[in-house]
Amino acid sequence: MKLLRYGAPGSERPAMVDANGKIRDISAHVADLSGSVLDPANLAKLAALDASSLPEVAASERLGPCVANTGKFICIGLNYSDHAAESGMAVPPEPVIFMKASSAICGPNDDVLIPRGSEKTDWEVELGIVIGKKAKYVSEAEALDYVAGYCVSHDVSERAFQTERSGQWTKGKSCDTFGPIGPWLVTKDEVADPQNLNMWLKVNGETMQNGSTATMVYGVAFLVSYLSQFMSLHPGDVISTGTPPGVGMGLKPPRYLKPGDVVELGIEGLGTQKQTFRADT
Amino acid sequence: MKLLRYGAPGSERPAMVDANGKIRDISAHVADLSGSVLDPANLAKLAALDASSLPEVAASERLGPCVANTGKFICIGLNYSDHAAESGMAVPPEPVIFMKASSAICGPNDDVLIPRGSEKTDWEVELGIVIGKKAKYVSEAEALDYVAGYCVSHDVSERAFQTERSGQWTKGKSCDTFGPIGPWLVTKDEVADPQNLNMWLKVNGETMQNGSTATMVYGVAFLVSYLSQFMSLHPGDVISTGTPPGVGMGLKPPRYLKPGDVVELGIEGLGTQKQTFRADT
Repeated sequence: MKLLRYGAPGSERPAMVDANGKIRDISAHVADLSGSVLDPANLAKLAALDASSLPEVAASERLGPCVANTGKFICIGLNYSDHAAESGMAVPPEPVIFMKASSAICGPNDDVLIPRGSEKTDWEVELGIVIGKKAKYVSEAEALDYVAGYCVSHDVSERAFQTERSGQWTKGKSCDTFGPIGPWLVTKDEVADPQNLNMWLKVNGETMQNGSTATMVYGVAFLVSYLSQFMSLHPGDVISTGTPPGVGMGLKPPRYLKPGDVVELGIEGLGTQKQTFRADT
Repeated sequence: MKLLRYGAPGSERPAMVDANGKIRDISAHVADLSGSVLDPANLAKLAALDASSLPEVAASERLGPCVANTGKFICIGLNYSDHAAESGMAVPPEPVIFMKASSAICGPNDDVLIPRGSEKTDWEVELGIVIGKKAKYVSEAEALDYVAGYCVSHDVSERAFQTERSGQWTKGKSCDTFGPIGPWLVTKDEVADPQNLNMWLKVNGETMQNGSTATMVYGVAFLVSYLSQFMSLHPGDVISTGTPPGVGMGLKPPRYLKPGDVVELGIEGLGTQKQTFRADT
């Protein structure tokens, strides 16, 4: 099942994609894609709806972030061995965790704002995990029971803010619009193996990243279990699991995004995003 | 005006302290202490209420976190020069930002859970800033216009998780209950100078921290302005501004919290907190 949210920022409505690829409004059945709605048991009820009987939504509608009320937007650093190498950093002995501000979240095709003073705005296609129910101290074996599904996550990053402006990466990860997620929350039953998904990213039509979740160092089940040892995960929390090689920072010479650049990215089975970058005013 | 929230976790109701120190329920006037309620203009309307006519709340009620729906719980690292010295780190050339998970927030007197595997759970009394309205690219001169008020913030920290478990501090800062805030949101009109507040913390009755916000490296107005250059601040966001000397990590030998330890802390004019630490199960 492919779930999504459409409409103006801040007043999105929930929807699903039917068998013919049409968007169908489900707001008569759930208030939003958040909280207990994301519990895998409740998602199963949504899957039983006759999608063809639901109100059709125009394909021209803006898409919002594919989940609402995300309390935590947790990221994993250096989780692809090749990306660690291009960043000049070693693969860490256990996952590196950092946070993006949840206020950075935006729709998959919204314009991304290059913040004032930015010199090094960079791209990162990532597999996003959407938590479906509260997880605390869960084992790797049971971890996927707490997952609602997956989405494309663009971990937009300002490298100077991240690494040259005094410690801790949050500063370069949390700018407004630096977290496009979606287009869809794809429920886990549709993702046979989250560790075998092709992923790609293009800048102005040129392929920059072309990888697979098969080369992740720490996989989905391990990460959910691992994070739950440090903090409770709640429905709607999003875990962005790291990026494969090909970011701008790793190029020789490095290359960063400028106003007018268009970034397209996608993950096999999870849909695509397309953003125009522009200067924040 | 001293605002607070009382009742069971997750179903707290808003209240204020009247001129005689009694707690008065204000739920007939505002749904909760969050969002637009925190706009300084709206807080002024609350201040006009005749508190003595409002329903009295039993002093025995549990106190919840003093704001609701905190989207971002932002912390400033090494923001007291003496604390930086005891941590063996230099004062940074600009503020160090990191995030605590908002799911770590709890009431000021709730038990604090020492997470499984913890060896180095430590204390940090901090001045918390509560944002009152959206702030983006604001100047230092206008920064306080966006502040609702202040609170005591206990930035509980697991030092091994923070610094010995692969990069980035979030891992040791975000455990459940590691963020007691309150007892009150004290509106800024009651705080003549946020850079001249005594602050203290005791462990089992022994004074461990005894400082003043006068020795903060980066002050409140600067921090609000600075952060707003990197991300929009929203109503209910909390900024925990760093801790003065005297944390357990800085003692020789270091000292950390064990189940049964009682921590009390307070800031001049902002009230006190008292937590019993116990093992998470």
